[in-house]
Amino acid sequence: MIVTLTTDFGLRDSFVGAMKGVILSIAPDANLVDISHSIPPQDIRKADLTISSITPYYPKNTLHVVIVDPGVGSTRRILYVQANEQQFLAPDNGVLSSLDFDNIDVILEVSNEEYFLPEVSDTFHGRDIFAPVAGHLANGLDPYLLGREISYEEINQFSLPPVKLDTDLCRIYGRVIDIDHFGNITTNISEDIIDQLVVNRKKVQITLNNLSVNEIVTSYSNADYKKYLALINSNTLLEIAQNLGNAAKNLQVKIGAEIIVEYRK
Amino acid sequence: MIVTLTTDFGLRDSFVGAMKGVILSIAPDANLVDISHSIPPQDIRKADLTISSITPYYPKNTLHVVIVDPGVGSTRRILYVQANEQQFLAPDNGVLSSLDFDNIDVILEVSNEEYFLPEVSDTFHGRDIFAPVAGHLANGLDPYLLGREISYEEINQFSLPPVKLDTDLCRIYGRVIDIDHFGNITTNISEDIIDQLVVNRKKVQITLNNLSVNEIVTSYSNADYKKYLALINSNTLLEIAQNLGNAAKNLQVKIGAEIIVEYRK
Amino acid sequence: MIVTLTTDFGLRDSFVGAMKGVILSIAPDANLVDISHSIPPQDIRKADLTISSITPYYPKNTLHVVIVDPGVGSTRRILYVQANEQQFLAPDNGVLSSLDFDNIDVILEVSNEEYFLPEVSDTFHGRDIFAPVAGHLANGLDPYLLGREISYEEINQFSLPPVKLDTDLCRIYGRVIDIDHFGNITTNISEDIIDQLVVNRKKVQITLNNLSVNEIVTSYSNADYKKYLALINSNTLLEIAQNLGNAAKNLQVKIGAEIIVEYRK
Repeated sequence: MIVTLTTDFGLRDSFVGAMKGVILSIAPDANLVDISHSIPPQDIRKADLTISSITPYYPKNTLHVVIVDPGVGSTRRILYVQANEQQFLAPDNGVLSSLDFDNIDVILEVSNEEYFLPEVSDTFHGRDIFAPVAGHLANGLDPYLLGREISYEEINQFSLPPVKLDTDLCRIYGRVIDIDHFGNITTNISEDIIDQLVVNRKKVQITLNNLSVNEIVTSYSNADYKKYLALINSNTLLEIAQNLGNAAKNLQVKIGAEIIVEYRK
Repeated sequence: MIVTLTTDFGLRDSFVGAMKGVILSIAPDANLVDISHSIPPQDIRKADLTISSITPYYPKNTLHVVIVDPGVGSTRRILYVQANEQQFLAPDNGVLSSLDFDNIDVILEVSNEEYFLPEVSDTFHGRDIFAPVAGHLANGLDPYLLGREISYEEINQFSLPPVKLDTDLCRIYGRVIDIDHFGNITTNISEDIIDQLVVNRKKVQITLNNLSVNEIVTSYSNADYKKYLALINSNTLLEIAQNLGNAAKNLQVKIGAEIIVEYRK
Repeated sequence: MIVTLTTDFGLRDSFVGAMKGVILSIAPDANLVDISHSIPPQDIRKADLTISSITPYYPKNTLHVVIVDPGVGSTRRILYVQANEQQFLAPDNGVLSSLDFDNIDVILEVSNEEYFLPEVSDTFHGRDIFAPVAGHLANGLDPYLLGREISYEEINQFSLPPVKLDTDLCRIYGRVIDIDHFGNITTNISEDIIDQLVVNRKKVQITLNNLSVNEIVTSYSNADYKKYLALINSNTLLEIAQNLGNAAKNLQVKIGAEIIVEYRK
């Protein structure tokens, strides 16, 4: 079974290595796939974006383990979720908010200590709870043995900031929700909204900080060297980028900044 | 066979990729597990802490390859160690100092060039010696063919700075030995020492630089947002942390700094 | 089949994880090996150096996927190359320039959309084209089904800056072509040139910025603590290093800097 790992543990210390040892001790044939261990410390939102971006590309039954867990050692719950024919193990802190929960099969509260390490620390549940439970699941453990079923209404989810529309002024107001390794700036404005409102992608005015761009293009190479551009990115969200440059750094844009798309009727 | 890799090679260059190619050319079924390639350059102490933290979580027979090797190309020896039912391949520079050596089966000096690459550079033994030897071991090579047996007394080990006790003043004097990715500050004061001397974990005075904390709690979430705390960490060592913050950065603490625990009789 | 991955995608985002999901969905038994995802953004030269350094150490048939692709979404081609009994998948932008192309079996232009994802974005061909094609190749797809054969003359290659010789003055003029994680400085002067011209490696004068060193030694430990040295590195190129230090940082050397080797007749 494929077991993916998404954490904020970094790659400098022994955290990830210890987790992998626990999983492989229980399930020697688990196929461990690192998604990212460089989620910024305690950044639940980035973990959520990351895991929701990759799940559509994984095969059925893949187990995704997501550990960005500032509440470790508190009473926060640990969740097992079966949805979209895949499995998830994560703290109940909103880290699975962007999953498509239309197709939930079950949500369980992971509480059966039989599947934990014999000694559970209060500071490293990744190693002491998540890893052994993942190992047992990879070995085919019936997930219903992990704990009681809970309802979707009981779990903690957060919402991305909503997109606001002013159809009189022909404006879409969005927010920056992510900045990637290249400095590309992702917003919460989806291609669906653009498709509904923007008749001509070549006749828009997009404003972000001091930047103004006048069309939505299809790829980075549509802009000249170091020019800024807007496009629909590979997660079908409106993105501001700079051809061969770091847009976020050069525009000094941070997560949460407002972006305005003005279109013609 | 699981082969773990712990190096200071970084992830920007071809070093790790070349090593993996050599191992997989010899042992296509080796299960390679990256522990860390971000050990700071030449930081033997951090490599030692890392490998000693993860070995308890790996299955029997796992081969741990540890390459932090400032003496590459000199006459420093390369060691094969069998201990605690696991195997280790490392330069003889102290990088295995914190292993529990109560259960050593054998220490060998790796010298049989038959198991090296045909051309051995003086600057990259990771690729030219460690990797092919690891590959042959993963294929079941009898380790005694690697070289002559040597005694524990012959190898280079270093000691962590000792904890000092002043039982009249009811004080434990320790040192900072590690700072992790989150900025959590690990000291050399073990839970064993705390258990022996500290009757009430809620009645202590712990001093580190300008910080003073008054109890040893169990998890990060026991402290309020951005408050500092002391706890016993997942390696059973006294740790100073900041809830949702980077303690080392905010307290400007470096490795080697003194920490004092004052307790009540 | 071993599938290696070399990209500039970084490890913070979901790019690498999405690619791995696509490959493993098609070829569950592919053995994925990360070479580096920390190639600096759009740095074709560094990707070229990286992939050419590791291929000699991989077994026959290994598939190397190299994605440093500033032209994604433009009309740049994607290449499948069979050379030296290994396979390569890369954009046609020079990223395979340093491969030894004496033994090319075939170069194909990858164009058959049957082996792409059903929806191909203009910004992430790594996930939508490279990954599914790699998965199908790992499953044994006949590469000739990917597209038409093209000739070596048709593809884009770049040349490393040439070494210049002044045999009257007994001088070799080279350039810095890489700086590694340790700060070691790689030049384009090969061991072959040194062997042809330099009779005595202990009687040279090597100049780089303000540094002058007087011999070519064999390993880092030949120099005293923090002293600079010249050696032939593990890729058989002349390298300037600092024992237990970061030469590039301390000498303020950048890629492209001139290095002069003066030898005796």
